[in-house]
Amino acid sequence: MKNRIPSLEEYLETKKNVVDRALDEYLPELIGFSAEISDSMRYTLFAGGKRIRPVLCMASAEAVGGSPESVIPVACAIEMIHTYSLIHDDLPSMDNDDYRRGKPSNHKAFGEGVAVLAGDALLTEAFYLMSGKSSRGISPEKNLAIIHEISEAAGFRGMIGGQVADLRAEGKNVDMETVDYIHTHKTQALITVSIRAGAIIADACEDDLNALTEYGEKTGLAFQIADDILDIESCRTILGKDTGSDEGLGKATYPALIGLKESKARMRTLVEDALDAIRHFDEKAEPLRMIARFIAERKS
Amino acid sequence: MKNRIPSLEEYLETKKNVVDRALDEYLPELIGFSAEISDSMRYTLFAGGKRIRPVLCMASAEAVGGSPESVIPVACAIEMIHTYSLIHDDLPSMDNDDYRRGKPSNHKAFGEGVAVLAGDALLTEAFYLMSGKSSRGISPEKNLAIIHEISEAAGFRGMIGGQVADLRAEGKNVDMETVDYIHTHKTQALITVSIRAGAIIADACEDDLNALTEYGEKTGLAFQIADDILDIESCRTILGKDTGSDEGLGKATYPALIGLKESKARMRTLVEDALDAIRHFDEKAEPLRMIARFIAERKS
Repeated sequence: MKNRIPSLEEYLETKKNVVDRALDEYLPELIGFSAEISDSMRYTLFAGGKRIRPVLCMASAEAVGGSPESVIPVACAIEMIHTYSLIHDDLPSMDNDDYRRGKPSNHKAFGEGVAVLAGDALLTEAFYLMSGKSSRGISPEKNLAIIHEISEAAGFRGMIGGQVADLRAEGKNVDMETVDYIHTHKTQALITVSIRAGAIIADACEDDLNALTEYGEKTGLAFQIADDILDIESCRTILGKDTGSDEGLGKATYPALIGLKESKARMRTLVEDALDAIRHFDEKAEPLRMIARFIAERKS
Repeated sequence: MKNRIPSLEEYLETKKNVVDRALDEYLPELIGFSAEISDSMRYTLFAGGKRIRPVLCMASAEAVGGSPESVIPVACAIEMIHTYSLIHDDLPSMDNDDYRRGKPSNHKAFGEGVAVLAGDALLTEAFYLMSGKSSRGISPEKNLAIIHEISEAAGFRGMIGGQVADLRAEGKNVDMETVDYIHTHKTQALITVSIRAGAIIADACEDDLNALTEYGEKTGLAFQIADDILDIESCRTILGKDTGSDEGLGKATYPALIGLKESKARMRTLVEDALDAIRHFDEKAEPLRMIARFIAERKS
């Protein structure tokens, strides 16, 4: 087969299927005492997510000439972490969202207690997966370094830090420093580490790793701004959850602080910067370029 | 200094201080955006826990001739995991406990949203700690194996599995199989892995590791039965939380199923079995023996 560059749709679809199959294998349906917790974990894990983070992880490995297969366990672990954060984020004590991707959110389907535990279990399972035999293709030193980076990006130094600030900013007049802190921590950190992990596993040289880190930071921030814009502009049918919910909660977002028009301009600049960062990469980075452009144009 | 065997009180106190100092170093007070999450994590982490799991981890390393210092990061990571489980367990959607160790529980002090996130952050931090430079004294292969075992014991295959079964058993007539599942998963799994991790880091031979695993399983189960007995017999002043709360929630416990007298007999048999498992160990295992006996006699 020739090295034809697939369309974005083809690429996302193919990679999403790879991730879905791997996740189904890592976390199969269970019976007995484990039935309910595995049902609850799988309910949100297979609720139709776009798998952006694992796809970015694989695309990043490919961009530096690595095989996307070698990163699958780590890519799936990151998706588990992302999914746990959605489950906990939807809880009544947090964003109190009844819907997620067009379906009742986890606590609506399984009750709050099991939803808390399903989130905990997905987070724990991510580390079980990364430290297990599926990751044996990666050197132990590199494997540990990746676990370290991912736990840094997911914990209070990263994603959780952003969520706490987000929670505390609700209903308050916040400044740009706070909005920046929330966005760089809540969303950007995990997206950036997805891209870095793929590149590290694929033995990227330092220059390429730095360029991809820059790409990840810009893309991650653009992604969050796009999310906040969608929350205002989209309708529930397309987005699969209540829209305008950020506004209802008085959330600290770019649109709330600098308006829609300025937010869109900023998002487009970030996408351009992301593309700039990997301009010297060859056609193997084309998927990363398509994904960056897609972020600014997506409707859901 | 002669190799005088310290009293249990001396031993527990010394080791607890080591753990407290290390935890304080790994997770210091922070300012700025991280102030609230670190305050919340530290609030329950330093609420006066006995540090039984990290002490068992160190005592296990010592029992096979290893240095207790080399296991400190892993021992502290296990204490973080234990602490996160307490915070989430106390939530209104779970056990709904307003007090923990004589103080308002985490969600009473910081609100439910931050309590969920503080638990998440402590769990994530445990893996950050185990994969970081503090653990460099352990070979990367062994380090990964330990992370794998601990995530297995903490996740839905272990502790979380037990918590889901516990939650579902509330107010129901449950059989001994369910009570056994709850106890072996909710409490025994993490205690056993504490002991195994200490022994593995200290390069225990297979026979010794098996013996210590047996010791851990018996001790872990005895510990949970003792907890359930204390919940009935103790008063709030000593225990620092509401007693009789298991009964109020209709919890699946040994005392509820087979009565207090039979539960005590079973607990004593388990302690004897634990002592039997390490009977051939020399005096370096004396702390493990004292701890097993202490479990059956403790008042809080």
